[in-house]
Amino acid sequence: MLENLIFSLDSTSKVSLQMQIRQIFVESILKRILLPGDKLPSSRALSQHLGVSRNTVNLAYQALMDSEYIEARPRSGYVVSAQAPVGRIAFGEVPSDELSSEDEVEWQDKLVEQAAPIRMVNKPLNWREYKYPFIYGQTDSTLFAHSQWRECSRQALGLRDFGNTVGDFGFNDDPMLVNYISSRSLPRRGIKAVSEQILVTLGAQNALFLAAHLLIDETKKVVIEEPSYPDLRDIISRRTSQITALPLDEEGMILDEAVLAEADIVCITPSHQCPTTTTMSLRRRRDLLALAKRHNFLIIEDDYEFEMNFIEKPSPALKSLDKSGHVIYVGSLSKSLFPGLRLGYMVASIPFVQEARTLRHLMLRHPPGHTQRTAAYFLALGHYEAQLRRLRRHLEKRREVLAAALEQESLFKQTAAHFGGTSFWIQGPDWLDARELARRAAEQGVLIEPGDVFFSPETAPLNYFRLAYSSIEEDKITAGMSLLSDIARQMERERARELAL
Amino acid sequence: MLENLIFSLDSTSKVSLQMQIRQIFVESILKRILLPGDKLPSSRALSQHLGVSRNTVNLAYQALMDSEYIEARPRSGYVVSAQAPVGRIAFGEVPSDELSSEDEVEWQDKLVEQAAPIRMVNKPLNWREYKYPFIYGQTDSTLFAHSQWRECSRQALGLRDFGNTVGDFGFNDDPMLVNYISSRSLPRRGIKAVSEQILVTLGAQNALFLAAHLLIDETKKVVIEEPSYPDLRDIISRRTSQITALPLDEEGMILDEAVLAEADIVCITPSHQCPTTTTMSLRRRRDLLALAKRHNFLIIEDDYEFEMNFIEKPSPALKSLDKSGHVIYVGSLSKSLFPGLRLGYMVASIPFVQEARTLRHLMLRHPPGHTQRTAAYFLALGHYEAQLRRLRRHLEKRREVLAAALEQESLFKQTAAHFGGTSFWIQGPDWLDARELARRAAEQGVLIEPGDVFFSPETAPLNYFRLAYSSIEEDKITAGMSLLSDIARQMERERARELAL
Repeated sequence: MLENLIFSLDSTSKVSLQMQIRQIFVESILKRILLPGDKLPSSRALSQHLGVSRNTVNLAYQALMDSEYIEARPRSGYVVSAQAPVGRIAFGEVPSDELSSEDEVEWQDKLVEQAAPIRMVNKPLNWREYKYPFIYGQTDSTLFAHSQWRECSRQALGLRDFGNTVGDFGFNDDPMLVNYISSRSLPRRGIKAVSEQILVTLGAQNALFLAAHLLIDETKKVVIEEPSYPDLRDIISRRTSQITALPLDEEGMILDEAVLAEADIVCITPSHQCPTTTTMSLRRRRDLLALAKRHNFLIIEDDYEFEMNFIEKPSPALKSLDKSGHVIYVGSLSKSLFPGLRLGYMVASIPFVQEARTLRHLMLRHPPGHTQRTAAYFLALGHYEAQLRRLRRHLEKRREVLAAALEQESLFKQTAAHFGGTSFWIQGPDWLDARELARRAAEQGVLIEPGDVFFSPETAPLNYFRLAYSSIEEDKITAGMSLLSDIARQMERERARELAL
Repeated sequence: MLENLIFSLDSTSKVSLQMQIRQIFVESILKRILLPGDKLPSSRALSQHLGVSRNTVNLAYQALMDSEYIEARPRSGYVVSAQAPVGRIAFGEVPSDELSSEDEVEWQDKLVEQAAPIRMVNKPLNWREYKYPFIYGQTDSTLFAHSQWRECSRQALGLRDFGNTVGDFGFNDDPMLVNYISSRSLPRRGIKAVSEQILVTLGAQNALFLAAHLLIDETKKVVIEEPSYPDLRDIISRRTSQITALPLDEEGMILDEAVLAEADIVCITPSHQCPTTTTMSLRRRRDLLALAKRHNFLIIEDDYEFEMNFIEKPSPALKSLDKSGHVIYVGSLSKSLFPGLRLGYMVASIPFVQEARTLRHLMLRHPPGHTQRTAAYFLALGHYEAQLRRLRRHLEKRREVLAAALEQESLFKQTAAHFGGTSFWIQGPDWLDARELARRAAEQGVLIEPGDVFFSPETAPLNYFRLAYSSIEEDKITAGMSLLSDIARQMERERARELAL
């Protein structure tokens, strides 16, 4: 019977050998290559055949027994169970042709909401394979409290929590998570909120999307920062074409009252401007709030990466100064844990949060219960605080190293950040096309993010880029920067030669 | 120092004693009730004080050491660590007044997309506290392969997968999950699809929402079934007011060509109509597809609960008959696993899936990586098949018991379902107000779902209700039905008395 099965274990696979053995048998049973009553090879024979330990085979067989795929028969060893779950559908009924390529639908005519091609930040999925990944928003798994997270996840899947976390929450969130957001995260930003003001979202971006859908249509005027987060611009531009991008100085967005007086919505990142990392001054925050009251516009505050602060005392969130309800606050747990987590939250006036909750219900019902409960345990047990502390310690060191390396290279100017964070925003010389720099750098294992996508498309300068230090290890920073510098200098020489011709 | 701490362990809590001890110390350290260098009680003293085992205290202390909240000092025992992570924000800077109740924003003027009050299916969150929960779509945790799910979750959080599942996926999904959907789930529905045609969504509802947003605006005419899923109606009615609900017969939706010829989108649940459980006949499916080609409308097929089939051989999905690309297929993994999982998928033509992927990216980026990978393992190891088999076996028995009980009560007529599923759709006598029946029944511990919310609001009959058997144990069904029957008979007598007056 061994000869019926393709037993090619892949020792380089991420799937364990035991797991691979189980998968092979399950597939074979489901595909009816193995039928009920068929004998399995003895664990001794199979372990010899595969060159794995007999214990590995035994564990795989035991697991197959547990899930009723096989059973042990006295003196026969293991056989495929008569109860083995196999597919029941009769395919004969319908000719299952090859996938038709004759798609007759003219999709261009059908779509009512079609994307302008999205402008993505340049970030290859296989960034881990690059030696010098100066890229933003990915996780350095060496800094994550992995075993504590696993423990919390296990706890949240325990039988005691199971009933609470597997069901449909209706309009609700995990009360334990909401409680910890309101008692632990928000006070650190100076915000007091009751649970009815808090909505858990599928990452901060989901909160921005919900707010945009509730507040923006083609009649609305929206103000954003220039430069700003490209996905935010894309979210808004699907709702209205009336977008004004206001430039920044060292105190944050310059408050052009003529523009703001006409605005319906202002989207800002005051704690840590995206992507320039500037922090809005307290004075300007107060001015902005006064303008919001005077001209009755709403503010969407993306309190982006505030927990990565390690330089100065963090300034309180804009929302903490808001007494009139004009600020919709957006926070993230994914940023300081890991981006694949997809947990964020919105804090705003109760009538607005109720509407957002309804829209969220129609859109996706609620973020997965198990994820919410795992994060709640992680907060409750203090792992989150410890994690932030460890992250800050490492980021501070990396920042120092990168800052020192940047000082060696006069081509690259960085904006001064009082904040900390995870990246530098770099202005290159006017002639520099950062897209070309990024392309050449990637060939040598250095990943950087060209900055043009952060600007308004019509007027985007090409000589900016983002240099993040959250994913690159400290001891690689100097060498990576040196390579990047060499490439930029090479581009400078080429340009000089061209000009000389 | 013990007296500084409020040590009230709650033995009825869902949180373990060890965990509670850790939480108390973490809270106290973060709130600066305990300061660095403060001595902790010895494990012996604390265990005596709390009346818990010394081992429990030791484990809690060890965990606090691991997360650097406390440290062991020779001859002093445990002290709060100088490195203990404590809050850093200076609240003094900003007067943190009590939450302002003077919300000055007129939210009615601000909202561009406001909900008509959503019509919810009646389903109390604390349904587990009712003795006879005939409610739909919740999980009977006794039927779930809990330990296998935990094992898969643990595996998916393993260091080997961590790098892949914690990062931002960009526009992508977990390739392992997509692979199993295309090779395992879809073939059971007769559907062949390449991975570019598959989009993983945050539950089936998220797929419906995405499709509605891409395809429907106020110019579009949409056809739905009468009755149908209330959230679907609410999703569509936020996009267009041109909704026609077509009635059903025993073969499914009646194909009124005059209406369909004008339609842009038709939303149906052919395998198992929601909520009546009718299965659309193969003949009518072919007719519907022919009409879609002739009049160039699109079909959104919600292949709702198909895996709960246990009566007849399942008929293949409409999508499997679709050669022209007119069908957008929506499937769910949450239904057969647990609703809090929030995983579903969409299968459609590549150009459409690309647009949906872009919109999903802006809306929420992607479903959490860990959830996707856990489900992938659950599928890969055959647990999903085994789970379905176990579910079907129990549901079949429950259905028999409930059907027998229903036969005893002539007031309640059920529609014949050839399919199986998890519920009966019940028609009461014309005079019956099922909302009143549900209200009275709940007082006696019996939960049912009044059916009016499934119909068009203007013409909704009140004498229908849904009776689900997925959450109620087999041995409670007969007694629950008997109670329900008594209440209905009591209402009948009251009505007779009123008529007699």
